[in-house]
Amino acid sequence: MTVKESSGIARRGVVRCEGIGARAGEDRVAIEEPLELRVGDTPLAVTMRTPGHDEELAAGFCLTEGIVRSADDLVALTPCALSEYGNVVGIELTEDAARLHRAGIERARRGFYVSSSCGLCGKQSIDRIEQEVARLGRGPRVEREVLAGLPGCMRTRQDLFDATGGLHAAAIFGPEGSLRVLREDVGRHNAVDKVIGHHLLLGRLPAADALLLVSGRASFEIVQKVALAGIAVLCAVSAPSSLAVDLAVRLDLTLVGFLRDGRMNVYHDPGRIIAVPPAASARGE
Amino acid sequence: MTVKESSGIARRGVVRCEGIGARAGEDRVAIEEPLELRVGDTPLAVTMRTPGHDEELAAGFCLTEGIVRSADDLVALTPCALSEYGNVVGIELTEDAARLHRAGIERARRGFYVSSSCGLCGKQSIDRIEQEVARLGRGPRVEREVLAGLPGCMRTRQDLFDATGGLHAAAIFGPEGSLRVLREDVGRHNAVDKVIGHHLLLGRLPAADALLLVSGRASFEIVQKVALAGIAVLCAVSAPSSLAVDLAVRLDLTLVGFLRDGRMNVYHDPGRIIAVPPAASARGE
Repeated sequence: MTVKESSGIARRGVVRCEGIGARAGEDRVAIEEPLELRVGDTPLAVTMRTPGHDEELAAGFCLTEGIVRSADDLVALTPCALSEYGNVVGIELTEDAARLHRAGIERARRGFYVSSSCGLCGKQSIDRIEQEVARLGRGPRVEREVLAGLPGCMRTRQDLFDATGGLHAAAIFGPEGSLRVLREDVGRHNAVDKVIGHHLLLGRLPAADALLLVSGRASFEIVQKVALAGIAVLCAVSAPSSLAVDLAVRLDLTLVGFLRDGRMNVYHDPGRIIAVPPAASARGE
Repeated sequence: MTVKESSGIARRGVVRCEGIGARAGEDRVAIEEPLELRVGDTPLAVTMRTPGHDEELAAGFCLTEGIVRSADDLVALTPCALSEYGNVVGIELTEDAARLHRAGIERARRGFYVSSSCGLCGKQSIDRIEQEVARLGRGPRVEREVLAGLPGCMRTRQDLFDATGGLHAAAIFGPEGSLRVLREDVGRHNAVDKVIGHHLLLGRLPAADALLLVSGRASFEIVQKVALAGIAVLCAVSAPSSLAVDLAVRLDLTLVGFLRDGRMNVYHDPGRIIAVPPAASARGE
């Protein structure tokens, strides 16, 4: 699905909008892809990462997650061929480290559920979402000018950010740009979960007429969460990842990035944004 | 450990530095605290979040992680009293949803390890780190001017960010400000794991004389990773969370935030930064 470039950068189609103007072209986006780490034959974790220096990532993960104490605990790191679910790095531990690791797994299994935020890998997740997401449907029709006004509206309500300079925000708006709910959190996934939870608890999901805006970037997982809430328009103040664009295209979800200063990049739109030419779903591959 | 304010904001001591001047005061930081979600008596997940709207977070998490399909699957959300490990929200599912959830847990347990990035909660992690971290020792002595130059050096090497506007970076520097390694990734934890893994694989850990710089914020988990690599000085271009400051104080790790435009906020420093008065470790509580 993703056109891979060793540089960590992929190209995707985009329509750049400013004022009433719009220009189709392509944009460079950061590649986001699942990397599976395996200890022997046992899956350890899947992380959504930018390809490159995967062995370093595996080694660092092992250290910072307490799986090894030093490089001496590592016998080998083996990049495998592409598997069905993405790239794989095999980790071979010394016998001592492997024994400690198995004990740690047992402890962990007694305690905690695995959330997809530590990983279920890209392909599996996409299959699941496609099965689970109620069709997003036509969704709202939105004026480009309304979209342009959303970040300013969000920004005036980011009270915690004003105080600390260190929080993510997510907000749900009506199709005419009225703010329905805004939440802030140190975790960007949490901010999205909070506004979606707000709507869920009020019986407002699926929110077929709503727009969701995040203060930061749009990754695969954010697109996934928004789609599962039945929201068809996702806007981000910053950049999308490659996999975010690909999932939006696959689900026919409208994805707008770099929504700031009256401009926006439309990475995919099946006709929901008024006055964006249809080339927004052209692929730059 | 954290002074809780219902607003999501806490106060911590800081020394604000600009040029050769330094001024002790206090800063408002975003609160980061573990929230445990439980289904009945079974732990579901722990997420590091900003307190507030916890029931919404729980509801949204359940929806976006596929534990419920709609609000109808939820019987009740019960905020519990503070537990030993932080706040807890109890989730009561309908019988049907609970059965599906148990089946999902079994599937997940067959597959994946639980990483601390989906949550082992704050207190447990801190205890573990305190046991595991080799004493950070005195660490390097660093000129304030050297620190001020790090973001500019990092910025000129963020090739992927230049192309996409959507990537985090982490870098390890020597005490005199020389760049040793820089990595970029869509995931900020991954960027940190990559530079630490780079050093691990080269046999350079613990890196007692090194400084680590992240392009974004400093959260609890970033401080944890840096400490486990034996690095005593962590700098962030953006804000730290409350728990990041608290952990830095506890571990005696030097923590610098908002390192940009020649300025910096020193949240904790046991004398490693030359020309910062010792009040940097004063607590603003």
